[in-house]
Amino acid sequence: MKLLDIFGTLKKDMNVIERELSRSIDTEHALLNETSLHLLKAGGKRLRPAFVLLAGKYGNYDLERLSNVAVPLELIHMASLVHDDVIDDAETRRGQLTVKSKWDNRIAMYTGDYIYAKALVIVARLENPEIHRVLAKAMVQMSIGEMEQIRDFFNTDQTIRRYLLRIRRKTALLIAISCQLGGLAADAPREVTRQLYRYGYNVGMAFQIRDDVLDLCGTEKQIGKPPGSDLRQGNITLPVLYALQQDSLREPLLAEIQRIHQANGETDVKQAVQMVRGSRGIEQAEALADRYIQKAMDALQQLPSGKTQKHLQEIAHFVAKRSH
Amino acid sequence: MKLLDIFGTLKKDMNVIERELSRSIDTEHALLNETSLHLLKAGGKRLRPAFVLLAGKYGNYDLERLSNVAVPLELIHMASLVHDDVIDDAETRRGQLTVKSKWDNRIAMYTGDYIYAKALVIVARLENPEIHRVLAKAMVQMSIGEMEQIRDFFNTDQTIRRYLLRIRRKTALLIAISCQLGGLAADAPREVTRQLYRYGYNVGMAFQIRDDVLDLCGTEKQIGKPPGSDLRQGNITLPVLYALQQDSLREPLLAEIQRIHQANGETDVKQAVQMVRGSRGIEQAEALADRYIQKAMDALQQLPSGKTQKHLQEIAHFVAKRSH
Repeated sequence: MKLLDIFGTLKKDMNVIERELSRSIDTEHALLNETSLHLLKAGGKRLRPAFVLLAGKYGNYDLERLSNVAVPLELIHMASLVHDDVIDDAETRRGQLTVKSKWDNRIAMYTGDYIYAKALVIVARLENPEIHRVLAKAMVQMSIGEMEQIRDFFNTDQTIRRYLLRIRRKTALLIAISCQLGGLAADAPREVTRQLYRYGYNVGMAFQIRDDVLDLCGTEKQIGKPPGSDLRQGNITLPVLYALQQDSLREPLLAEIQRIHQANGETDVKQAVQMVRGSRGIEQAEALADRYIQKAMDALQQLPSGKTQKHLQEIAHFVAKRSH
Repeated sequence: MKLLDIFGTLKKDMNVIERELSRSIDTEHALLNETSLHLLKAGGKRLRPAFVLLAGKYGNYDLERLSNVAVPLELIHMASLVHDDVIDDAETRRGQLTVKSKWDNRIAMYTGDYIYAKALVIVARLENPEIHRVLAKAMVQMSIGEMEQIRDFFNTDQTIRRYLLRIRRKTALLIAISCQLGGLAADAPREVTRQLYRYGYNVGMAFQIRDDVLDLCGTEKQIGKPPGSDLRQGNITLPVLYALQQDSLREPLLAEIQRIHQANGETDVKQAVQMVRGSRGIEQAEALADRYIQKAMDALQQLPSGKTQKHLQEIAHFVAKRSH
């Protein structure tokens, strides 16, 4: 499902963004064209551009300026995914072959570098230095988050705080700044932009927690990859951390995770997935996601009411309930 | 040898840049601190910052502004090296273990991403949109160059034009824009900045050709890695392309390169190195490097004469003669 299907009003402008995305990665280099287009066509919800456009409604809505923010944000997201797939040894994403499995790791790394650089070419069109600062700082935090993730693979001793900090860097920040930069690019009032950031941050946290729940509870068709992929690669997510707090589950679950670790993920993860599914971890994680959604709704309450506020509420609801 | 040893006059300012470089990569993240510092301490000639400062002498020399250009350029260079080492499977660089061999490929990839992002944080301080544009476009070209390099591994049919285009993207562009951006950041006259770019581009081409000659003719001590590393990884450089044009050498050299390819580089490359060393390829490559140096000198002739012009000449001479 693409968000543009929800919002008829955004559809025309989202199509413009989609065209700009295709144009932005265009290159005379055949292989880079192929890998980048493969990534682009693999789809995605275009959540970040949608947030930019909606945030822009709170100021002087100028599609060209907003596009110069929305396109780089989506490109940065895509580039981080392709580098992520190298790390995760992922064969598929969104039901499609990843660049690293269709080509190889080296090609995936440079495709990511290329897409990052193309994002910067568009960012360079923006003259507001604050946009540059916000974006660069978020990219630093994202790369720290990626590094954290590697270090925390199979770390069953990590605290929930540590998990939250990691998904903050990995996911929530980029969504937060999508809302913030949409506001900034449209010269929305400062306080509005601040609440937009708060909204985006909390939606982003909920989104990633939901993603982590889905990886355990979804079907392969829903999530576009085999369930339990996180556990296979050692990514210890919130439901697992909660499950590990359950006395009756802790020892057998630790043993299963250790077995997966020793097999380098090349083993059946069904047992571990079943344990977590059967634990209270799922509902506890969902409850925390709901708390973040509630905070996002609180931020929205501070914004002028109207159609845009309603749309942002719908997205938050969509994130809260999503099954894909 | 660091270039700051040549130029007493730049020494103080180069030390400021060095401190800023250390500060720029500082992070609360222990592993990233360690990998980034390892890279920084592995040294390098700091050629790009030196060019920025020298170019700045042709305008309003403001160390802080120039540092905000010099530091990102060196960081981008460092980040590209660490990603390069992933691709090249390089164990050592400048006589030091590479990040990918001391840690692993994934950590090297994210260290590169982190350093790129840190470069952007500093670039964001600059308000001149032209600087952003020039930098972003160069980064796109660099990533295309890296991708080309992968595709051209063991491609013995490539033309010399293709080789030159690759080193232009891989090396010459970043040196060219170091000179250009130094001029831009100091508001030097347009024509001066144009000639600075021309100078940097030609010095950069000569520099990379020399590097490729050294990889074949230098000792392990001189080049900080075993000679013939390029051939081992399939990087077909100018002296090899010239040697392949020699009728008497072509067949045996092709056979040797094919043997190295089939062994995935895990074999002795001495034979191939000896063939190229004994060919006319070395002097032909050196002659072409000299032509680029001559063009760099021509560009310098268009610049106001004085101490800075003399320093830039010395660097060009240094590049022409360098044995390390």
